[in-house]
Amino acid sequence: MKYAIIGTGAVGSFYGGKLAHAGCDVHFLLHSDYEYVKEHGLQVDSCDGSFHLHSPQVYNNTASMPQADVVIVALKTTRNHLLKELLPPLLHKETLVLLIQNGIGPEPLLQEQFPNLYLAAGLAFICSSKTEPGRVNHQCYGSINIGNYSCKEPAIIEQLIADFTMAGITACEVEYMEARWKKEVWNMPFNGMTVALDTRTDHLLANPETRKLIHRQMLEVIGAAQALGAKNIEASFADQMIEMTLNMAPYSPSMKLDYDFHRPMEIDYIYSNAIAEAHKAGFSMPYLEMLEAQLRFLEATRNNKE
Amino acid sequence: MKYAIIGTGAVGSFYGGKLAHAGCDVHFLLHSDYEYVKEHGLQVDSCDGSFHLHSPQVYNNTASMPQADVVIVALKTTRNHLLKELLPPLLHKETLVLLIQNGIGPEPLLQEQFPNLYLAAGLAFICSSKTEPGRVNHQCYGSINIGNYSCKEPAIIEQLIADFTMAGITACEVEYMEARWKKEVWNMPFNGMTVALDTRTDHLLANPETRKLIHRQMLEVIGAAQALGAKNIEASFADQMIEMTLNMAPYSPSMKLDYDFHRPMEIDYIYSNAIAEAHKAGFSMPYLEMLEAQLRFLEATRNNKE
Repeated sequence: MKYAIIGTGAVGSFYGGKLAHAGCDVHFLLHSDYEYVKEHGLQVDSCDGSFHLHSPQVYNNTASMPQADVVIVALKTTRNHLLKELLPPLLHKETLVLLIQNGIGPEPLLQEQFPNLYLAAGLAFICSSKTEPGRVNHQCYGSINIGNYSCKEPAIIEQLIADFTMAGITACEVEYMEARWKKEVWNMPFNGMTVALDTRTDHLLANPETRKLIHRQMLEVIGAAQALGAKNIEASFADQMIEMTLNMAPYSPSMKLDYDFHRPMEIDYIYSNAIAEAHKAGFSMPYLEMLEAQLRFLEATRNNKE
Repeated sequence: MKYAIIGTGAVGSFYGGKLAHAGCDVHFLLHSDYEYVKEHGLQVDSCDGSFHLHSPQVYNNTASMPQADVVIVALKTTRNHLLKELLPPLLHKETLVLLIQNGIGPEPLLQEQFPNLYLAAGLAFICSSKTEPGRVNHQCYGSINIGNYSCKEPAIIEQLIADFTMAGITACEVEYMEARWKKEVWNMPFNGMTVALDTRTDHLLANPETRKLIHRQMLEVIGAAQALGAKNIEASFADQMIEMTLNMAPYSPSMKLDYDFHRPMEIDYIYSNAIAEAHKAGFSMPYLEMLEAQLRFLEATRNNKE
């Protein structure tokens, strides 16, 4: 299968790089790092074994890229308005677009613009960051859950999972709602709370009051998921997520980095869409609604503080 | 009536100063400012008319003070453990102790130590701050609601209100629970939110998301008060409090000043006691429980940040 990677940042470089390193035919779209990576290649520093791609197939626009069987979108959701222009050159009749993105709602919103497109959600449990041009650091974890949203050819998803597995990535298919909401169980508490309290995951869990609050927020997400009919997310998943986080190195979630570096935060997809969906099912999320309001305030006032 | 003022700070200096300025017999306990005020007097800069007390009756310990008919305690609740030692020299059989303090619970907790003491709550709606030794700035408002907790001589409270009125202070008696909880409707949202988001009251109300959140938090306090049987606090009181705050100059509540100046915050009385009382009545306050946890975190980590 031919792969296109849209968004060659901390996440796209890792998954695309692993596939290319394993011999898959991978085509990378780059923006600011295009010239650098074209000349110097792509470096993946990884806890699972570092590697360098000397001559990755790189492009600075999708019009010059070949059509792909799988397009992996690893952009922040704050840039999803670009997809309407970026995607068409990459698509044939049975292209699968895998959105490795956080939050609730990217597939239905994109489907409105591309009614016949095969879409799937990719939920990455990974700690990685871009450290300099053409270089990412994969600190820990790395598995990916794939949830089929509208792909009518199950064989494509099977092949995708087989390629990921061959490349050394733990990948499995889970029910779509379960895939998206399970990631929210981690994302909604930790992304916002590290921003609101200007701190890190380990500090939030070291303090008994915020640890209890994080746990309650997780139960709120699980309650919303259950109200919306997501299968297989039980209260004990909150304990698993806290346990996993305790075993992680001190970590600043992506929203904390976005806030600190004055990039837009993914409040719409990670918070507002989730809260709105839960409301439709008659479920309210007071802790996370409060966090959403605090984040909106911080985003609006951030620039006045400097 | 003879008055003793314990806690001659932003609030105690104003109310005690107004009573003394109007000719009442007022005795002030001072701590760090004792020498300065003994020599230079007490200056009250006030939107209602500034004045100077040239020779106030000041003391640096209660043992040398006369017994009082009314003891006005205007300490922060974080210092209430001192009252066990401070009060006895000031008390006769019918002394009324008026606790001008924020939060829920100071009277029952003090009553455990002084079972026969007459106690009342004083809830001050006032913006004032201590600007330098022996000097306070009264910016706006200034009325006081008095709630009788255990005073068996109604005439004392009547005389107290008459003295306040004569001194130019709007004072009225309200039911005890109503007095304490009405102030909480303002205190619980604004004190914690200005600390959590490092901001001021006017900025919180200028942002539509936090304004809505503040309103919801107020409704949560009103719900708790109603569940506990507090009379005469209706949902429309939240609108009144927001309207009042919009008319105030930009303001940093006392907890924000405490946080910024590394003094202990009144989390126990303003948050934890209120939340615990509400729980006893089967009412939960998720927004304010979350704020409490954020404040506990910020207090615990404040010193590590510098």
